[in-house]
Amino acid sequence: MNTKTNFDDFEVGYDIPAKPGMDEADIQTPCLILDLDALERNVKKMGDYAKAHGMRHRAHGKMHKSVDVLKLQMEMGGAIGVCCQKVSEAEVFARAGIKEILVSNQVREAAKIDRLAKMPKLGANVIVCVDEVANIADLSAATQKHGTELGIFIEIDCGAGRCGVKTTEAVVEIAKAAAAAPGLTYRGIQAYQGAMQHMDSFDDRKAKLDAAIAQVSDAVGALKAEGMETELVSGGGTGSYYFESNSGVYNELQCGSYAFMDADYGRIHDQDGKRIDQGEWENALFILTSVMSHAKADKAIVDAGLKAQSMDSGLPFIFGRDDVKYIKCSDEHGVVDDPDGVLKVNDKLRLVPGHCDPTCNVHDWYVGVRGGKVETVWPVSARGKAY
Amino acid sequence: MNTKTNFDDFEVGYDIPAKPGMDEADIQTPCLILDLDALERNVKKMGDYAKAHGMRHRAHGKMHKSVDVLKLQMEMGGAIGVCCQKVSEAEVFARAGIKEILVSNQVREAAKIDRLAKMPKLGANVIVCVDEVANIADLSAATQKHGTELGIFIEIDCGAGRCGVKTTEAVVEIAKAAAAAPGLTYRGIQAYQGAMQHMDSFDDRKAKLDAAIAQVSDAVGALKAEGMETELVSGGGTGSYYFESNSGVYNELQCGSYAFMDADYGRIHDQDGKRIDQGEWENALFILTSVMSHAKADKAIVDAGLKAQSMDSGLPFIFGRDDVKYIKCSDEHGVVDDPDGVLKVNDKLRLVPGHCDPTCNVHDWYVGVRGGKVETVWPVSARGKAY
Repeated sequence: MNTKTNFDDFEVGYDIPAKPGMDEADIQTPCLILDLDALERNVKKMGDYAKAHGMRHRAHGKMHKSVDVLKLQMEMGGAIGVCCQKVSEAEVFARAGIKEILVSNQVREAAKIDRLAKMPKLGANVIVCVDEVANIADLSAATQKHGTELGIFIEIDCGAGRCGVKTTEAVVEIAKAAAAAPGLTYRGIQAYQGAMQHMDSFDDRKAKLDAAIAQVSDAVGALKAEGMETELVSGGGTGSYYFESNSGVYNELQCGSYAFMDADYGRIHDQDGKRIDQGEWENALFILTSVMSHAKADKAIVDAGLKAQSMDSGLPFIFGRDDVKYIKCSDEHGVVDDPDGVLKVNDKLRLVPGHCDPTCNVHDWYVGVRGGKVETVWPVSARGKAY
Repeated sequence: MNTKTNFDDFEVGYDIPAKPGMDEADIQTPCLILDLDALERNVKKMGDYAKAHGMRHRAHGKMHKSVDVLKLQMEMGGAIGVCCQKVSEAEVFARAGIKEILVSNQVREAAKIDRLAKMPKLGANVIVCVDEVANIADLSAATQKHGTELGIFIEIDCGAGRCGVKTTEAVVEIAKAAAAAPGLTYRGIQAYQGAMQHMDSFDDRKAKLDAAIAQVSDAVGALKAEGMETELVSGGGTGSYYFESNSGVYNELQCGSYAFMDADYGRIHDQDGKRIDQGEWENALFILTSVMSHAKADKAIVDAGLKAQSMDSGLPFIFGRDDVKYIKCSDEHGVVDDPDGVLKVNDKLRLVPGHCDPTCNVHDWYVGVRGGKVETVWPVSARGKAY
């Protein structure tokens, strides 16, 4: 599973937080750790769900940015390939031999279009999203230049309020242009409702997804009336995949966060009103942090601050503890409320980050642990690949 | 000035956003750019101020994490060396030949103490902060093992509420222990008031710093009464350096953000009620971002989201524009309100990030621009060095 890192090149505590075979107690903090048992259960569960519902699963690589985690999702969870958000990110997976790659985003700048059009030469089937007809000519010209082919998804803005077209007329216009353009193939629809994924209530999420499904169905129907078959309808996240899977319209999922989980997703509720991190998914990703000062009796200072996590979705919580609480975050420090003074200097805590995606993007390594030992250390292969 | 990066090894758009000599228009986004003229003016201004006030300036490396920026601060701004927050970060600067290094933080874990005690072998004078007497024996033992010496700052919590002792008695106790310990030398006091730096009003900041100065003076006086001279009293940031400089107690500054500036610091006011980014300091750091979708008439979607910046201190602002506004940030996208539809796909914007330190830590490179050209590309040398 390991991408063949030569650990001889790395110093623990300078380049890397741990090496395989070390005791968990010797990991240098702060760093990301993965509970491999929990990760594998999450991966298998989503794979089984997708299979049982006849859905393809194209796992979202933007969350973990890791070739090794993706390979686990493919081997143990039946994922057919990867979604990426940036050309450079997609190149990391293509260079690692991944054959099915969707850039679930727009690519407009000339140099990026050129890189994208070259990517099939690495052996990958590459699909990209389009939300303006003017983009079609640029993409087509680049494929002609390189003698390659690109698949095209028309992106529908079904509620996220970012990229994507809002009308069926626009979908049909761009799909027709793609179908007519040399080097391009109309493959389907991108319709990810990003704005509802983190809504607390199952019923509120369902209402938003019902509206999205109606919008996508209308577009697929209009395309059919024009004689155009839609091979793939792709979308769905950790807060919605059951809606897409039972929609009769979508046939491809793009889930990411389910594999690791985070504090913000953990707080949303399932159909029975239960937090989704208390049954549906397990926390597999943690920031391992150490107490580095306890000069004040009721406050422990830990070594994971803003450089070890993203605060966009709020503070982390301390896994498995209700006697201590992470209450404040600055650049290099976290303040942990410890009213009974139970923590000591060098004690380690597992933090569940507020938001997994941008937190993973801060780190260079995942330390995979099982049974108190470091079993593997995986690079965050596409860290910083934002171009 | 450049740390001799071999640019032949890097592909623009995959490994690196630009190479020296390129036109600014060809930089791959999103990435960090530095306005070198503005940076140099900031650096020189702080250097001149410190010199005029008889202060040492030990520039804070945690902000930029860049050997090249530090060298500029030393050569053009008279900085005497660097402050770091982590052992691995300090090692980056020590390996680059920096001779004066302060780890302005506690080091408690055995492997980290061992690395710290080895660092003087690289030719650096290394000082570390202590806030508990138990730490002294561990540090001393490690210096004995390696045949090195470490300087000790006693850290006072003068308002930040993180590490540091609160009482003069505790300062004296630890300083005495340090003075008596083989391999350690009591060098002075660390007293950085982090909590007041971002308070809007000059008078509010002054009140907080006056209290800090009184606390530090009391400790220095008590040490003197015990026959212990305090060589260095170190602290001060971009929102306070004039208070420390005129205190009669502090003799070393630790400013960081002044060199780059950010949106959050920019909003605080000087003695005359003027924003400090409108006269005192210039914005030198920007996230360069491109419009990648404009499918909705009044909203432009740009390519800099949470993976290109830290949101802990709020949204970025768009430099030099009041006709468009960055209003929302998700993982890979920013939503820019463009009520008059003035932006086009592939237009570039300069964002001033909410908080420079954790934003720099997301990126691998600074692209230094001058006169429309890429003059230099500097690595974020200590990016991810959090251990």
